[in-house]
Amino acid sequence: MKKLINNPDHVVEEMIDGYVKAHSSYVKRLEENDRSLVTSKETAEGKVGILIGGGSGHEPAFMGYVGAGMADGVAVGNIFASPPPAPILEVTKAIDKGAGVVYLYGNYAGDVMNFGMAADLAAMEDIQVEMVIGSDDVASAPKEEKEKRRGIAGEFFIYKTAGAAADFGYKLEDVARVARKTNDNTRSMGVGLSSCSLPQTGKPSFVLDENEMEVGLGHHGEPGIRKAPIDTADNVADELLNHILSDIEINEGDDVVVLVNGLGSTPRMELYIMFRRVEKVLKEKGINIYRSYVGDYITSLEMGGASITLTKLDDELKKMIDHPVDCPMFVQR
Amino acid sequence: MKKLINNPDHVVEEMIDGYVKAHSSYVKRLEENDRSLVTSKETAEGKVGILIGGGSGHEPAFMGYVGAGMADGVAVGNIFASPPPAPILEVTKAIDKGAGVVYLYGNYAGDVMNFGMAADLAAMEDIQVEMVIGSDDVASAPKEEKEKRRGIAGEFFIYKTAGAAADFGYKLEDVARVARKTNDNTRSMGVGLSSCSLPQTGKPSFVLDENEMEVGLGHHGEPGIRKAPIDTADNVADELLNHILSDIEINEGDDVVVLVNGLGSTPRMELYIMFRRVEKVLKEKGINIYRSYVGDYITSLEMGGASITLTKLDDELKKMIDHPVDCPMFVQR
Repeated sequence: MKKLINNPDHVVEEMIDGYVKAHSSYVKRLEENDRSLVTSKETAEGKVGILIGGGSGHEPAFMGYVGAGMADGVAVGNIFASPPPAPILEVTKAIDKGAGVVYLYGNYAGDVMNFGMAADLAAMEDIQVEMVIGSDDVASAPKEEKEKRRGIAGEFFIYKTAGAAADFGYKLEDVARVARKTNDNTRSMGVGLSSCSLPQTGKPSFVLDENEMEVGLGHHGEPGIRKAPIDTADNVADELLNHILSDIEINEGDDVVVLVNGLGSTPRMELYIMFRRVEKVLKEKGINIYRSYVGDYITSLEMGGASITLTKLDDELKKMIDHPVDCPMFVQR
Repeated sequence: MKKLINNPDHVVEEMIDGYVKAHSSYVKRLEENDRSLVTSKETAEGKVGILIGGGSGHEPAFMGYVGAGMADGVAVGNIFASPPPAPILEVTKAIDKGAGVVYLYGNYAGDVMNFGMAADLAAMEDIQVEMVIGSDDVASAPKEEKEKRRGIAGEFFIYKTAGAAADFGYKLEDVARVARKTNDNTRSMGVGLSSCSLPQTGKPSFVLDENEMEVGLGHHGEPGIRKAPIDTADNVADELLNHILSDIEINEGDDVVVLVNGLGSTPRMELYIMFRRVEKVLKEKGINIYRSYVGDYITSLEMGGASITLTKLDDELKKMIDHPVDCPMFVQR
């Protein structure tokens, strides 16, 4: 696959370089580690720090979400690979304002290991760390083993609510509680239509037939639950919603926030056609959509497909969802 | 190509339906015409109305830019096809607050004809209309014939500045003057890597070889100035910038706003790698980047590639660029 890149070994380095130059009023690189980015704005003393991160290739995630109302810093890994402990630790030290730091990341073996090691190192520097691991993908493990599930687009809502809670002056354990509640209340599932290719190989990371889709596909091409001929947007949305709604109790009169997320190369047109169906189905069930997000929030390079995320809201989470955000790749007024 | 759609004949209808449902606090459909969308918020009496529009398939353009600080309404065409006069006229009538309406659209034969007819019909209803036609694509006609050029991603800056001018209470002729000055000061050029396909045919709208790019490609697959083997991001950026900078006088010490726009399926990573080079080249020339935009602003379904836009700024345009915006697909604080 053709790419607008220079040396494939330098894509992450050059992306960060361009990103920091484009948004220098928002983010800066730490001198201590060039994979450590933090907000350019002064963070208030006593505010809990929000640290996000993971592999590259998921932009706007993760670095696009550093800014007011969301994360204070990000550790940037190679493409689809966790950052090592060093950049995580440096961000931790930079954003700790005496109130501790919450790490938010997805449930992948590499991330769990590296963020865990960084937390141990932070403890040795007397920085308190709480970790909240996103595990929203219903296709990736049975209902009884939610803690084994992958984190996909629903992680966005964890950053959103935890970032707001920290802004509101919540203490470390309360920010973590809000983040965990969000994860507990969040379910996602996706469909893949076409693969992406890693810059270093140029080869597709998985292969689908010309007319085939993969239901439940993960964000790095992890296998889904079935391959099938491509179906209508309405049928696909129904299938994803059925899995989500049979996994979490959302009743008539409940409020949810909805995210229809594009995986990279899916036109907005198709995402809105998917959203149209989601809205119809939820309306028929008497479930109220409190707020909607439609677009590319967590991608996989140029992968084709989409995911649907629902998060069940209580009054506290509604307040967090409504809080304004000002990040380079996401702004909410 | 695989698409998440239902009936290919209904994609625009269903997209609008999903869009209005997702963002009902921002936009509503007019009862008079289902291709006419206007802001949900009350527009102040005496404010000049901003009307944008064109074919579908370019999302976020055009309907994503209806909201505070940008457009008051949009007329939505079929895919890559101008809206007819009727939806344009209905939007005009709905958003005219006694101060007239400015039409902003790209220089395509269908748009020129249909917006022109709508303006004639509006005149018969005693609504004053000014029209400003985007013509920023340097690859599409010689320098001496700028008025023959296509409008591409640079149109975004015309909406941005005209929307701000209207918000600041400028009169009709002054809003139009700001929009025209923006167009006069704007140059863009793009590169295509891969085609998109129309939902009704499923066939690519043009074909490039596996390793080929097309420099100067238009937003609907209009031919560029040369086809060549794919080159590095830096070389491509240099080539586009050379064309732009030899077309407009931008001197050391001048201020510009930069847009690196993705055509649909280009990962953000690649856009930032392109931006990195643009920043470097402009810095070497002593040209100051006043503000940067990197992302999908005007797309062509799932087309692969990117464009670079520069707009030379004076103090008035800086003020317009800085003005906040709150639209469903673009927010600036």
